[in-house]
Amino acid sequence: PASRLPAVGTTIFTVMSALASETGAVNLGQGFPDFDGDPALMQAVKDALDAGHNQYPPMAGLPALREAVAAKIATLYGTAYDPGSEITITAGATQAILTAVLALTQPGDEVIVLEPAYDSYGPSIEMAGARTVRVPLTPGTFRPDFERIAAAITPRTRALIVNTPHNPSGTVWTEAEMAQLAALLRDTPIVLIADEVYEHMAYDGVAHQSVARHPELAARSVLISSFGKTYHVTGWKVAYAAAPAALMAEFRKVHQFNVFTVNTPMQHALARYMADPRPYLDLAGFYQRKRDRFRAGLAGTALRLLPCEGTYFQSVDYSGLPGPIAALDENAFCRWLTTEVGVAAIPLSAFYQDGFNQQIARLCFAKRDETLDRALARLAERL
Amino acid sequence: PASRLPAVGTTIFTVMSALASETGAVNLGQGFPDFDGDPALMQAVKDALDAGHNQYPPMAGLPALREAVAAKIATLYGTAYDPGSEITITAGATQAILTAVLALTQPGDEVIVLEPAYDSYGPSIEMAGARTVRVPLTPGTFRPDFERIAAAITPRTRALIVNTPHNPSGTVWTEAEMAQLAALLRDTPIVLIADEVYEHMAYDGVAHQSVARHPELAARSVLISSFGKTYHVTGWKVAYAAAPAALMAEFRKVHQFNVFTVNTPMQHALARYMADPRPYLDLAGFYQRKRDRFRAGLAGTALRLLPCEGTYFQSVDYSGLPGPIAALDENAFCRWLTTEVGVAAIPLSAFYQDGFNQQIARLCFAKRDETLDRALARLAERL
Ligand SMILES: CSCCC(=O)C(=O)O
Ligand SMILES: CSCCC(=O)C(=O)O
Repeated sequence: PASRLPAVGTTIFTVMSALASETGAVNLGQGFPDFDGDPALMQAVKDALDAGHNQYPPMAGLPALREAVAAKIATLYGTAYDPGSEITITAGATQAILTAVLALTQPGDEVIVLEPAYDSYGPSIEMAGARTVRVPLTPGTFRPDFERIAAAITPRTRALIVNTPHNPSGTVWTEAEMAQLAALLRDTPIVLIADEVYEHMAYDGVAHQSVARHPELAARSVLISSFGKTYHVTGWKVAYAAAPAALMAEFRKVHQFNVFTVNTPMQHALARYMADPRPYLDLAGFYQRKRDRFRAGLAGTALRLLPCEGTYFQSVDYSGLPGPIAALDENAFCRWLTTEVGVAAIPLSAFYQDGFNQQIARLCFAKRDETLDRALARLAERL
Repeated sequence: PASRLPAVGTTIFTVMSALASETGAVNLGQGFPDFDGDPALMQAVKDALDAGHNQYPPMAGLPALREAVAAKIATLYGTAYDPGSEITITAGATQAILTAVLALTQPGDEVIVLEPAYDSYGPSIEMAGARTVRVPLTPGTFRPDFERIAAAITPRTRALIVNTPHNPSGTVWTEAEMAQLAALLRDTPIVLIADEVYEHMAYDGVAHQSVARHPELAARSVLISSFGKTYHVTGWKVAYAAAPAALMAEFRKVHQFNVFTVNTPMQHALARYMADPRPYLDLAGFYQRKRDRFRAGLAGTALRLLPCEGTYFQSVDYSGLPGPIAALDENAFCRWLTTEVGVAAIPLSAFYQDGFNQQIARLCFAKRDETLDRALARLAERL
């Protein structure tokens, strides 16, 4: 029988993590920290277990956690979501994205995706029976090109997925870009799926432009963010979606028949832990120091550094390396880097459906300083 | 814009749990225990947290947990699944069902569901763009009617969902019924989605007939079971799917873009805890004692007890109650029972797409003996 996802293989993040552990490479591929979450957060899980919070929570998530999320969004970005009807806790951001796409599209609809794009967007749209319309971000800068986005809109366009801070390029959309986006969508029925999982990782004093800062956008958006990335617990698989009640009602119809609900002890722990805003308020400073340490180290290599305004990813252009290496395509380069240099990376081509190659690899700096230094030493020695 | 699931409201389990907590009713509606999992299992989570197991596990699940699942299935049912390519850990059984349906169908395919049926099956099939073909179980006995199933098969039939032990009726399929099923599917390309989440709750010495006991069925099945139901931790939302490698490859394509992977600390804890088979081997005895206590208590009421061969649900026929009560439809009866008698139940009509009414309500006996006794006292006083 035919496959639902004929073009899909194993996701590159899994492939490179496996290669890294086989070869003993420093794994700067898949995006996750190699350090642990706050002991206070771990203690909060233990307390939830001891308190017997082990049965189904409400379908949309623990009320206390939804209230904490609403309070955070209102304080940081100004939009007041009703925790009762406008926020849902999800089993990670990837699940939230599939759920949003299923909920908001019909077979035959078109969904615009800006490339390079996280590799779940396309398959999510395909699973929904909708069609992915791929629009490139501006080559070189990875900034949105509104003329190209405008040209891609048709009467069938139902949704647009925007990701800022942007994985893999680290671009952070500006206030002006958000205003242009609002103007572009005005008078259309297009909904936004706003993937903001790196919301607390925008650097150099630049403010993350959540859709929740822009009422006109918030009114047509499903905002998605992640506890795993913010609190260094990617394996917990807990995230959230926020949207106006009418959109959220559709989201929940799908959610309740997808995962139904999300891990109870973790929800209790996160609700308690969120009372303290410092962990997320301090996050940009914490990662900016890592970014700066990592960039300073890379500056001593023949790799060209691309800008990194946000996220915990640093992209590098390897076209200045000696000929045979520079000539490798990104997949081959990343395999070479992993097996020969001992540092795992992700080819940018994995974020393009057609595997577009531009001699760029993505490195994750969400690592202990020792890990970064070990990787830098290997890179400096060989490149 | 049109809704993806126009007919879907909030699931009955959520509605009745909310009504129970508003009214202070004893909640025998939604299926979950009111007691806690084993302290040893809780300790295993704490140890996993302390060991720093908080980042992404492999996409298909922790190898140690997949191995434990494979060992359990091989020991109990005789089929040897390869943990590497044939078992995947899921974010609950509901997610496994949607993932299986998405993975194994194409838009336009037909999927046969035997009614009464768990309320996620239909919406899952609808989300996949496939068509639900509903075949009733034999009225009164809730046993499979193979003539009717055979009559429902068409060239478009791609899958059949079978649930044994059966929610809500408690029916446990027999070896002869499994053989009839195998004969029926022989020479068809139909895959089975086997929802066996109550596998360890078959009573009176009756053996649960897993598809993994029947090689001919196992070869065409995705077997789904739940850690939450077996270990009294429904809120953890961890389950698994097992299937031959070719089916599992398709399942994983969808899984990796649905939830990607599942809570790491819980997977570590479950892997360690499964080394001891007693918790699941003792489960049937544990729940059989509860069933017997509950049935003995109900025998003193005017409710007619339906058989309960398995699951933790006891269904009752209320048509023998005084006229005005007996005349209520199931929804109204369950609301009356919750608000007036103080015992929440689930109308069987929630398991039929057309809301078919037969004066039957489902009661969950996965409760402390005191809870059951309190419910029984209320029921005995009024019915
Ligand atoms: C879900 S695995 C991928 C983690 C991630 O977001 C990334 O590496 O881009
Ligand atoms: C996912 S909530 C419903 C729990 C359950 O399986 C039931 O009550 O039937």
